Amino acid sequence: MIRVGVAGATGYAGAELVRILAGHPNVELSVVTSRQYANQRFDRIYPALAGAVDLECAEHTVENLCERTDVVFLALPHKISMSVAPDILKNGQKVIDLSADFRFQNVDAYERHYQAHTATDLLATAVYGLCEIYRNDIRGAKLIGNPGCYPTSVLLPLVPLIQNGLVDPVSLIADSKSGVSGAGRSPSLTTLYGEVTESFKAYKVAEHRHNPEMNEVLSRAAGKSVKITFVPHLVPMSRGMLSTIYASLNNGVGGDDIRSCLERHYKDQPFIRLRSDDRLPDTRFVRGTNFCDIGFRVDKASRRLIIMSAIDNLVKGAAGQAVQNMNIMLGMDETAGLDQTPYPL
Amino acid sequence: MIRVGVAGATGYAGAELVRILAGHPNVELSVVTSRQYANQRFDRIYPALAGAVDLECAEHTVENLCERTDVVFLALPHKISMSVAPDILKNGQKVIDLSADFRFQNVDAYERHYQAHTATDLLATAVYGLCEIYRNDIRGAKLIGNPGCYPTSVLLPLVPLIQNGLVDPVSLIADSKSGVSGAGRSPSLTTLYGEVTESFKAYKVAEHRHNPEMNEVLSRAAGKSVKITFVPHLVPMSRGMLSTIYASLNNGVGGDDIRSCLERHYKDQPFIRLRSDDRLPDTRFVRGTNFCDIGFRVDKASRRLIIMSAIDNLVKGAAGQAVQNMNIMLGMDETAGLDQTPYPL
Amino acid sequence: MIRVGVAGATGYAGAELVRILAGHPNVELSVVTSRQYANQRFDRIYPALAGAVDLECAEHTVENLCERTDVVFLALPHKISMSVAPDILKNGQKVIDLSADFRFQNVDAYERHYQAHTATDLLATAVYGLCEIYRNDIRGAKLIGNPGCYPTSVLLPLVPLIQNGLVDPVSLIADSKSGVSGAGRSPSLTTLYGEVTESFKAYKVAEHRHNPEMNEVLSRAAGKSVKITFVPHLVPMSRGMLSTIYASLNNGVGGDDIRSCLERHYKDQPFIRLRSDDRLPDTRFVRGTNFCDIGFRVDKASRRLIIMSAIDNLVKGAAGQAVQNMNIMLGMDETAGLDQTPYPL
Amino acid sequence: MIRVGVAGATGYAGAELVRILAGHPNVELSVVTSRQYANQRFDRIYPALAGAVDLECAEHTVENLCERTDVVFLALPHKISMSVAPDILKNGQKVIDLSADFRFQNVDAYERHYQAHTATDLLATAVYGLCEIYRNDIRGAKLIGNPGCYPTSVLLPLVPLIQNGLVDPVSLIADSKSGVSGAGRSPSLTTLYGEVTESFKAYKVAEHRHNPEMNEVLSRAAGKSVKITFVPHLVPMSRGMLSTIYASLNNGVGGDDIRSCLERHYKDQPFIRLRSDDRLPDTRFVRGTNFCDIGFRVDKASRRLIIMSAIDNLVKGAAGQAVQNMNIMLGMDETAGLDQTPYPL
Repeated sequence: MIRVGVAGATGYAGAELVRILAGHPNVELSVVTSRQYANQRFDRIYPALAGAVDLECAEHTVENLCERTDVVFLALPHKISMSVAPDILKNGQKVIDLSADFRFQNVDAYERHYQAHTATDLLATAVYGLCEIYRNDIRGAKLIGNPGCYPTSVLLPLVPLIQNGLVDPVSLIADSKSGVSGAGRSPSLTTLYGEVTESFKAYKVAEHRHNPEMNEVLSRAAGKSVKITFVPHLVPMSRGMLSTIYASLNNGVGGDDIRSCLERHYKDQPFIRLRSDDRLPDTRFVRGTNFCDIGFRVDKASRRLIIMSAIDNLVKGAAGQAVQNMNIMLGMDETAGLDQTPYPL
Repeated sequence: MIRVGVAGATGYAGAELVRILAGHPNVELSVVTSRQYANQRFDRIYPALAGAVDLECAEHTVENLCERTDVVFLALPHKISMSVAPDILKNGQKVIDLSADFRFQNVDAYERHYQAHTATDLLATAVYGLCEIYRNDIRGAKLIGNPGCYPTSVLLPLVPLIQNGLVDPVSLIADSKSGVSGAGRSPSLTTLYGEVTESFKAYKVAEHRHNPEMNEVLSRAAGKSVKITFVPHLVPMSRGMLSTIYASLNNGVGGDDIRSCLERHYKDQPFIRLRSDDRLPDTRFVRGTNFCDIGFRVDKASRRLIIMSAIDNLVKGAAGQAVQNMNIMLGMDETAGLDQTPYPL
Repeated sequence: MIRVGVAGATGYAGAELVRILAGHPNVELSVVTSRQYANQRFDRIYPALAGAVDLECAEHTVENLCERTDVVFLALPHKISMSVAPDILKNGQKVIDLSADFRFQNVDAYERHYQAHTATDLLATAVYGLCEIYRNDIRGAKLIGNPGCYPTSVLLPLVPLIQNGLVDPVSLIADSKSGVSGAGRSPSLTTLYGEVTESFKAYKVAEHRHNPEMNEVLSRAAGKSVKITFVPHLVPMSRGMLSTIYASLNNGVGGDDIRSCLERHYKDQPFIRLRSDDRLPDTRFVRGTNFCDIGFRVDKASRRLIIMSAIDNLVKGAAGQAVQNMNIMLGMDETAGLDQTPYPL
Repeated sequence: MIRVGVAGATGYAGAELVRILAGHPNVELSVVTSRQYANQRFDRIYPALAGAVDLECAEHTVENLCERTDVVFLALPHKISMSVAPDILKNGQKVIDLSADFRFQNVDAYERHYQAHTATDLLATAVYGLCEIYRNDIRGAKLIGNPGCYPTSVLLPLVPLIQNGLVDPVSLIADSKSGVSGAGRSPSLTTLYGEVTESFKAYKVAEHRHNPEMNEVLSRAAGKSVKITFVPHLVPMSRGMLSTIYASLNNGVGGDDIRSCLERHYKDQPFIRLRSDDRLPDTRFVRGTNFCDIGFRVDKASRRLIIMSAIDNLVKGAAGQAVQNMNIMLGMDETAGLDQTPYPL
């Protein structure tokens, strides 16, 4: 049994990690830490898990995280992750970080959109944990920067198309829509029920911090600088994310080429579902799962490709992909702990 | 492996059965039938289950249901169940019926609130599948009348208290609230999104058909006729049911007696969670699970006991309890297929 | 034109006051104060009102509230109201207070459930502003304690029945359900979207502070001490409140007596709608209005009366009733500013 | 007083017309017809309007619609509108049609996306009722084709920019999101609560019938054929629509030019609100109103203009704009009946 710890276990992504790890057949969940709820039972904070998780939250310290663990998940805010990751790595644990701190290869980009980086020496060895794209690099990694939710939904369909030169990198637009849980569990006016229900709006238009994260990975795929236009929106729902992606087809490229490219890359991937019938991706179909559902259409008049990509922002967009990364790192079955039958409704 | 069939698999309760059975370690899901979607792939109707269920819906016939099955679940409307159950039983399969057709021992009560009963000879052998109360009877049963959702949420906390004479049977009131999925998947004005959202209302006040079902079981527990006042309400949510139950404490009875009675009956029951701390039952905590969460308070001024009981109407209130019944009937682990870790959110 | 001020205008009840007063034909909205948003434009905080309200929020001071006003509405937290009301009254303005500070005649009851009262000398002249019941007292009042939302929904149907001795005061139970806006606009974990959606639960069971408020008014109606059992619940919706009220019919009383009593009291009341057909009250039907919709059924088996009473918690349960109080106090048309056509959906 | 009739008054758009017209100061609502609810009281179908509308639904016949009316609103399905409009016009009433039947100048486009047109002789005189753009034509019109909801939200911000040559017509993309009420009140699986809540998805991608409607108006504005890429999405909310529109800025054009163009066109328009501060359009801010809120940002890296445009699909997107059209046609104050103070929440 692999012994794992979760730092920041009482945030939404942390709690989702706890759920998945508690049901993982090869894992013993040894320690969960919380800055806010130290010394309280986890199932008092999340009563849904009564009977399933019998742990008390420990204080958030490196010592607690390293005691009896082989792998540590960091579900902490940006900046706090990079303040503890070096010590945990030194102690011998592998680290999977759900913050942005280890997602960038380009320090400047990170520092421009976040803050000064205090563990730059680790960036060279950190691997961007977009599993279906960087699986080989993940296998040998000790430190994973787990991708952002928006980038996951946008990059999974786009990277193969860009790598194969099927769409024009200058034309890329991602119009993304997310449920509210992505904003986390800290009380704030903008995520109150009364402010969200019967409301739909864009936010951080063309200035969201997931934009440079996408740009870095798309540029790597294209072999040249790519800047996608990215607009996130808030949907009155708890979980789920749908990205509608617009790209101009290159000359001579048609819908069949798109389909065969995506099938070639994703046919045997357990968590990618290409819809080949008339059902388009819907966040409801991936709710609570690690799936990324992908569908597309071609607007013939404009020769634009329109991709719809749906994930659960807390699972494939955070905790699920983090566990998938662990499974790959440790050579376990990639779907271990992630194969519950999805809910029909 | 037990081979099972599901009739009416494309309704909400049927699809939930498919979900649970597809993940059940001791079960092979052999056949699913649908009157509306015969010859279509199940995962076209429920794309969430793509990759998890690789079946086509068969025509709804007794032949299809009996081919390669040991147990048949009937997720059919009232009246249709009793038209097929006799033939399936004759063929040797066990039957678990989710309709009301085999819930009543008293034919008159059934016929007064539903319609003429066409399989009355089976009623004597049918067992009311309220697992935690009638487990012994369920063990040897061949035909189960799976309880209604409202009765499940009301009876589980009340029956032990009535049996032990702790509350006055004349005083019983159940004020229940249900998510919309209980009304099923057939399109109707009252369950349209626009009619339900930002709406809360009572319906079928003191005339819901689950009322006589409760009365029959409560009367059995009390050893005399009991008539509970029952008012169901519709909540703008998809899944979940909470019953707030009012009962006058008998002389000399206090909150401690209530707690010890419930603990005595339910301490070792895997699907009953008595809250002993300050967290009250919430439908969110049982969403997608087979749990019934129970909490209570005493209003000292009036000496009224106030019980809150939460279930997922589609799981413990329908498909989950049906599978629990199968597990008990066949001597399997009672939690098999029902032990996924609950979602924190 | 009556000149009015609103203290605490950026909370939900305060903003709803601003909405109503901005459209009131006899009113000039002179000043709105905000402790949090002083010196910001009101329509930056509530962009919906851009074009309708052209005011900047003033600092919350007695001076600001008294400058160019005839009536001051206090939409402030308990305790803060009673710290400013005396000075405003001394200055000559009439005061309508939406907090609990002036709702109680019994200081002990207030102090037991809130805190020490610092303006007890005003209590004798304060009038409980339940318009349909205390209209005569309101006419001459200078200080109104505007009723709580739950008490409004429970007392309007019950008081006439109690006054006329139709139901047994010992038997009263109110099972109430409220939208989330009642919890206000201050960020808190329990009102986050993710915590509320797909969730239904009771809270403060038999210990909510609106319980003693109901008891005081019910006791006055009965001429003896009455203690109603009261359980509030949280509904995943923004606005709206439905109370389901249980009461045992006194000997010889039937449904017709209930109907004729309610019709006698409420036939000419512009904001009470008794449903006489098969449509039961629904929070959606009163959304955004000052109506209280009332319906009832009798459970013959138990001789229990079951009343359903629906209001919009922010309008008839707060701001609307406050304006109705002002209209009565000043001898204006009682419906002035409150007669917008309701939305069908 | 203008006497008006509403055909199809019990659909969502029809009921919203009834609401607005019932509160319109210059209008007498003479007749409402319903194919489904003839001879039933309107307020039994829509209990919210009890006390506000005292009419019975008449049979849907031309005779009923022409009796005692000066203007007739048709809130009927496509095809049915054009079967009654000619007779109503012959009888002397003005007609405002909310279906697509009179929106197109190009019969071929209509017939390609709808069906054979049976009143083509009327198309030459029908005016496309996009009030802020075609006000002069509307003034003298007898027959209005009231715009679709999606076109309204997309065309209002785009037409002035296209007319002024500020953006490249080849680059246009509209990613629109609508609440569920747009799908109407007829029961259907796709609009059931359980199918919509916690769900977000695109539908009719690049093949929605509002696409050719947009194309026709945009082409007129550009003076050449324009084909916008249009993708509608379904949001789990009842009312509201937000369009996010992408367009490449022409050479030399910057954000200031966009702002000044929009201000020039819309400064004195009572129902257009350009946000100049940091608050972006949100469907919640226009809920229940006839406003179209517009905001924009420029993505400098790609020189793309990103416009956000929010309306209430049932008001500015249907019934409200229809009444605005009537006001303009009859020379009344354009805001009559449409000036209720918006709700803050």
